[in-house]
Amino acid sequence: MINAILENQLIGNLTKAFGRSPLQKNRLHESDAELIRLPERPGQLLAVTIDTLEEEIAYGLYTDPIQVGWMAVLINLSDLAAVGASPLGLVISTTFAENSTDEFRHRVMQGIQQACTTANTFVLGGDTNFGKYTSLTGCALGLVDECMAKTRVGSQSGDQLFASGPLGAGNAFALAQFSPVPEACKTAVTFQPRARRQESAIMAKFASACIDSSDGVIAAVDQLMRLNNLGFVIECAWDNILSTSAWHLCQTTQTPPWLMLAGYHGEFELIFTIPAPKVTAFLTAAQQANWRPVHLGHAVPNPVFTLETAGQQVQIDSARIRNLFIEVGGNIQAYLHGMLSLGNAYKLDSLH
Amino acid sequence: MINAILENQLIGNLTKAFGRSPLQKNRLHESDAELIRLPERPGQLLAVTIDTLEEEIAYGLYTDPIQVGWMAVLINLSDLAAVGASPLGLVISTTFAENSTDEFRHRVMQGIQQACTTANTFVLGGDTNFGKYTSLTGCALGLVDECMAKTRVGSQSGDQLFASGPLGAGNAFALAQFSPVPEACKTAVTFQPRARRQESAIMAKFASACIDSSDGVIAAVDQLMRLNNLGFVIECAWDNILSTSAWHLCQTTQTPPWLMLAGYHGEFELIFTIPAPKVTAFLTAAQQANWRPVHLGHAVPNPVFTLETAGQQVQIDSARIRNLFIEVGGNIQAYLHGMLSLGNAYKLDSLH
Repeated sequence: MINAILENQLIGNLTKAFGRSPLQKNRLHESDAELIRLPERPGQLLAVTIDTLEEEIAYGLYTDPIQVGWMAVLINLSDLAAVGASPLGLVISTTFAENSTDEFRHRVMQGIQQACTTANTFVLGGDTNFGKYTSLTGCALGLVDECMAKTRVGSQSGDQLFASGPLGAGNAFALAQFSPVPEACKTAVTFQPRARRQESAIMAKFASACIDSSDGVIAAVDQLMRLNNLGFVIECAWDNILSTSAWHLCQTTQTPPWLMLAGYHGEFELIFTIPAPKVTAFLTAAQQANWRPVHLGHAVPNPVFTLETAGQQVQIDSARIRNLFIEVGGNIQAYLHGMLSLGNAYKLDSLH
Repeated sequence: MINAILENQLIGNLTKAFGRSPLQKNRLHESDAELIRLPERPGQLLAVTIDTLEEEIAYGLYTDPIQVGWMAVLINLSDLAAVGASPLGLVISTTFAENSTDEFRHRVMQGIQQACTTANTFVLGGDTNFGKYTSLTGCALGLVDECMAKTRVGSQSGDQLFASGPLGAGNAFALAQFSPVPEACKTAVTFQPRARRQESAIMAKFASACIDSSDGVIAAVDQLMRLNNLGFVIECAWDNILSTSAWHLCQTTQTPPWLMLAGYHGEFELIFTIPAPKVTAFLTAAQQANWRPVHLGHAVPNPVFTLETAGQQVQIDSARIRNLFIEVGGNIQAYLHGMLSLGNAYKLDSLH
């Protein structure tokens, strides 16, 4: 079932010859960050994750060098948050385009530093190269008590599905860059997500599984569905679950709101399941920390993905949604067009 | 003094705004891998390093996908060996060229796995992307007792300089690819270095400082010179210190042997200093492990870099040698030409 997703298939296929460390707790696909037992230190895990920022720069989605640096840090810290780990720091390898200016390079570094300062963490080291294109690879390290470490596995039917915050800011930003929206909309939509570290510490005490929404909400929930062999119902109370910028963009441009969950440019929130008996305690702990998690829906026994509004239920083929970007060869306009077609096919546009 | 090297200057300049983690033991430039104290675990350090393999692929130096995968692992494990750390494993982010074949991609992965198996370590996780060019970024993690951790700092005048093995294989390989040498030479020169893990464990018990020769021997010794504010004499007994392939290439093509130390494509040996009173014990320990370290020279009080043969001493400006690749804008032919000119200027060709 996991291999219905082309990206999972590709990764599984490429890495099938790899041995697996006896120190590693999680299996392939099962965790946002790798969880490694430290010899002679029972009960504590090292969390490590590596992520390259390249496509978003190559496609012209991130053009502000501050944003480029910020996101290179954020994509990795978000993975640590999803497993419940506290960051030790990051190492970052930067390849600058040969024709990049000194100012561009310094502003990328500024963005890196700003993201680290905001998250109260540090760049520990790195590597600097020059090449044809700019790309950044970050690797974040963290520690987590084994009893608190979260993976994507553990959700049960009846669990309640939550997000760490309002959704859709990533897709709203991408849509504002790549589709013909009014200039006022474009400039109103900014994107500077934060790693959900404080939220992660609370989430980890209650959740049965967690994943970040780096590839969008539908991809995240679909992955939980496949790994846990159950289904999910997302309750689409749009004005409640969407971020202000995403909801505003939908209303002013007549964009179907489901696209804010379906698009591939995620918002880096945590998406997690809480067993029903723990929901009250979880919400109380969240409230005490002035955190308002967003209730998204619940897990059901059958492995079916359902979007629900007050009036309607629609079952979606989330694999098709996830595979579309690869199937159109990464062409942005074909992707947007294909998503709208899928929406028509599933009658998703009626989910208002 | 450290900033006389353009690469050091660039890195220092780009990272000057970065904060430094209170957990970090080493300062900038001081270590092949970052050394991080683990909270609640006094006496043990986490070693972490990140390195991107891109230029060697872009320049056509590595064309065999097995070698590409192997080297992506090796460049990182070599940094762990230089600080005396035992590997926990690696995470690797791979960007494949969009026009790469399925076979190419699988063979890169095979090379990664072979390097890991040989070093008795594991790929813990990764990230897979597609872009215009193939590049791989590895990040290796290891553990080392704080009392055994090595940095590049600690050499004293009178220390003896050693290499973990014969030198020049990296530059011999590069020269065979990029200069008009007989076909028999080209195919005779292979390059598949190994991370010096066993040697590292012995080295760490005796050495005052260590660095790997990833950028060549002269760059490595020059960096030790700058960080420790002293000089080095390298005793150029060529047939003793050069690897069989490097020495053979020099003899059959009349290549001046000093180029095997000076070129930028290193051999990934460990270069380290042993305090004179510990040399006998070190050599005994090495012999017991069937390891024959190569004696290279010694440290002297004045920060001058000297190459010495039986008949002659030549002082070299190692900063000029190190800076040349950047100064010629990374043009390989200009670099080779420039190196030969420097050799003439310093009368290095007489060092037979």
